[in-house]
Amino acid sequence: MTAHKTLPFTIEEYRARLEQVRSAMRERGLDLALIDQTDFLFHLTGFGISENMYRACVVPLEGEPVFMLRAMDQLPFQESTWLTEYVDFSDWEDPIEVLARLLARKGWHDKRIGIDGDSYCMTLNRYRRLQAALPAVDFADFSGVLEVIRAIKSPQEIAYLRRAAAIGDIAMEAAFAAAGVGKSERDAAAAVSYAFMTNGGDGGRTGPITQGIGDAFLHGNLHDRPLQQGDILHLELLPFFNGYSARLMRPAVMGEASAAQRALAEQLLAIQDAQFAAMRPGVPAREVDRLAREPIMAAKLRPSYPNITGYTLGYYPQSTPHTSDFTRVFLPTSEWVLQAGMVFHMYVSADGIAFSETVLVTDDGIELLTRSPRRLTVV
Amino acid sequence: MTAHKTLPFTIEEYRARLEQVRSAMRERGLDLALIDQTDFLFHLTGFGISENMYRACVVPLEGEPVFMLRAMDQLPFQESTWLTEYVDFSDWEDPIEVLARLLARKGWHDKRIGIDGDSYCMTLNRYRRLQAALPAVDFADFSGVLEVIRAIKSPQEIAYLRRAAAIGDIAMEAAFAAAGVGKSERDAAAAVSYAFMTNGGDGGRTGPITQGIGDAFLHGNLHDRPLQQGDILHLELLPFFNGYSARLMRPAVMGEASAAQRALAEQLLAIQDAQFAAMRPGVPAREVDRLAREPIMAAKLRPSYPNITGYTLGYYPQSTPHTSDFTRVFLPTSEWVLQAGMVFHMYVSADGIAFSETVLVTDDGIELLTRSPRRLTVV
Repeated sequence: MTAHKTLPFTIEEYRARLEQVRSAMRERGLDLALIDQTDFLFHLTGFGISENMYRACVVPLEGEPVFMLRAMDQLPFQESTWLTEYVDFSDWEDPIEVLARLLARKGWHDKRIGIDGDSYCMTLNRYRRLQAALPAVDFADFSGVLEVIRAIKSPQEIAYLRRAAAIGDIAMEAAFAAAGVGKSERDAAAAVSYAFMTNGGDGGRTGPITQGIGDAFLHGNLHDRPLQQGDILHLELLPFFNGYSARLMRPAVMGEASAAQRALAEQLLAIQDAQFAAMRPGVPAREVDRLAREPIMAAKLRPSYPNITGYTLGYYPQSTPHTSDFTRVFLPTSEWVLQAGMVFHMYVSADGIAFSETVLVTDDGIELLTRSPRRLTVV
Repeated sequence: MTAHKTLPFTIEEYRARLEQVRSAMRERGLDLALIDQTDFLFHLTGFGISENMYRACVVPLEGEPVFMLRAMDQLPFQESTWLTEYVDFSDWEDPIEVLARLLARKGWHDKRIGIDGDSYCMTLNRYRRLQAALPAVDFADFSGVLEVIRAIKSPQEIAYLRRAAAIGDIAMEAAFAAAGVGKSERDAAAAVSYAFMTNGGDGGRTGPITQGIGDAFLHGNLHDRPLQQGDILHLELLPFFNGYSARLMRPAVMGEASAAQRALAEQLLAIQDAQFAAMRPGVPAREVDRLAREPIMAAKLRPSYPNITGYTLGYYPQSTPHTSDFTRVFLPTSEWVLQAGMVFHMYVSADGIAFSETVLVTDDGIELLTRSPRRLTVV
């Protein structure tokens, strides 16, 4: 059958991304690059499938890249990619052998090939077999390249993130409507999941929804127990649109909020407002981190603050061990500066209460892509 | 705060799993094993969190295993694990350095340590840095071990899979109720997602729901276009319960099924019934594969059949590049035999129509854990 193309980006945008990869290859003296981490395969080719069997894209300095994939994945591949060259394999073939044969057939068996040493798809055993199958290849490290290439978002990427953020705002309202004394975390999660699906989100995976207790609740589990008066429901929503993920945290208090809860929420929001006001291109990430971390610690809102205060947003594969992109994080030790077009998930949290936003760095400041009211909500 | 333990298995079951790992370590002459792949971390420790930052469990031959994790993940860790020993790190620390210090402090800096060479968490760069930080360690390959240990399911694991399968059956009914001429794939996915969440499933991720076209549709994308009379809606549902995933494929035809569609569905089901009747302990996997593959090819139901006909089910992490466990697959080249307690996803497909079940191998045959009516459904 003929696949109907549904490319999320123009061919020109993909070609520009390819040229960025090639530029990095030239800097490193590479003839070829092997791209296999799912995040980067999508960015470069449009095809970001799970890695149940090994698949990869071989990028030469000149000529078309070649994708290697399972024969059974041809239909979604053709529908999703701008590439035209591929080799497929049957499930009883060894993908590493298929890759080695492809490289030999193309005359690439004695080239200098960049491998992403941070790729979760290039296991130690695969790398050893690839080395054994291609003894004349000079393997070089090509890690840390694609992360940088995709750090600055294009207008189309920002449009997808904006749409994802809007879906998140709708779902947050749905979560508040579904929450209350006697309801469970699950009830809110069901409402969020349904809101994602019925408002154009990619899937029904909600993000962490759990009770806000202490300072280490952000990755808490989903529970079925009924929430009680005064309990905090922590909502972190992960809406996706065309693979791009926005994020949004809000607290909901059951029945009635205590004076302490209200005061803490206001303190956190005021601190975050001041942090946001300082964010603009050229500002060091560690300064942005400090503007949240120091006042929270100074006001003794938490006894310790071991975690990052923000990280990169953008395309996230559905199937990845990384639910967050930590190639750019906000820490006291961070050594990078903000640039226009970067998008981050920025958050503050203490004693069961957390607020976060999806933040776009613009030419002269920031824009919050998430628009849910910044307040403690009582449900 | 004190975490309320919600362990999915008894301490005795976890201790037995640990002893299986140690037995494999002794066979290989290892002093220690480093477990980091999420699937196996959960199996051994109960904690199966994403891998945004490196985390691992160090298993010595004697004494308690030690888990290394982000400080911010302490709460879900303590709630989920039976382990008592752990070290945590702040987000500005390098987990590989923390691990190296832990090994040195424990006097394990010159031991023989098994590393899982198939782990998607042990990247090339991490391995190189670990080697550099621990020059006296003798690193050995410990791949292929945990896969085997968890291949045979315990009664408690089977109970979770049974519950997941029942959630899948309910969601399949909900999908049929939401589908029809003029409705989209998304409408069915929304119903499935909501059914998962409101019936005790772990999350609202549905599985592939797409139009059944040709032979390469199984991993098709989710579309918003309205389905038309005679179109096939392919539903593959991935219900999860306590991390354990059942799977179920059914076709729904819009409005009215053609005679050809009905005949094809009946042929596929009859072939699969014969395959299921032959499955029991001791039967070679390639024979089970042949019983589906050969009659489908002989009847010319498909021009080619490049894909596997089944694979292992069990615990699947929420955050993994592997949406399916392919450590045991059904292929003409498979070299293993069925054993009681194994659970598989078995499927047949041709020309837009696919059927599958979650299949438990019992002492004298199989039990289908999924119970949805085995038929082509017209909606």
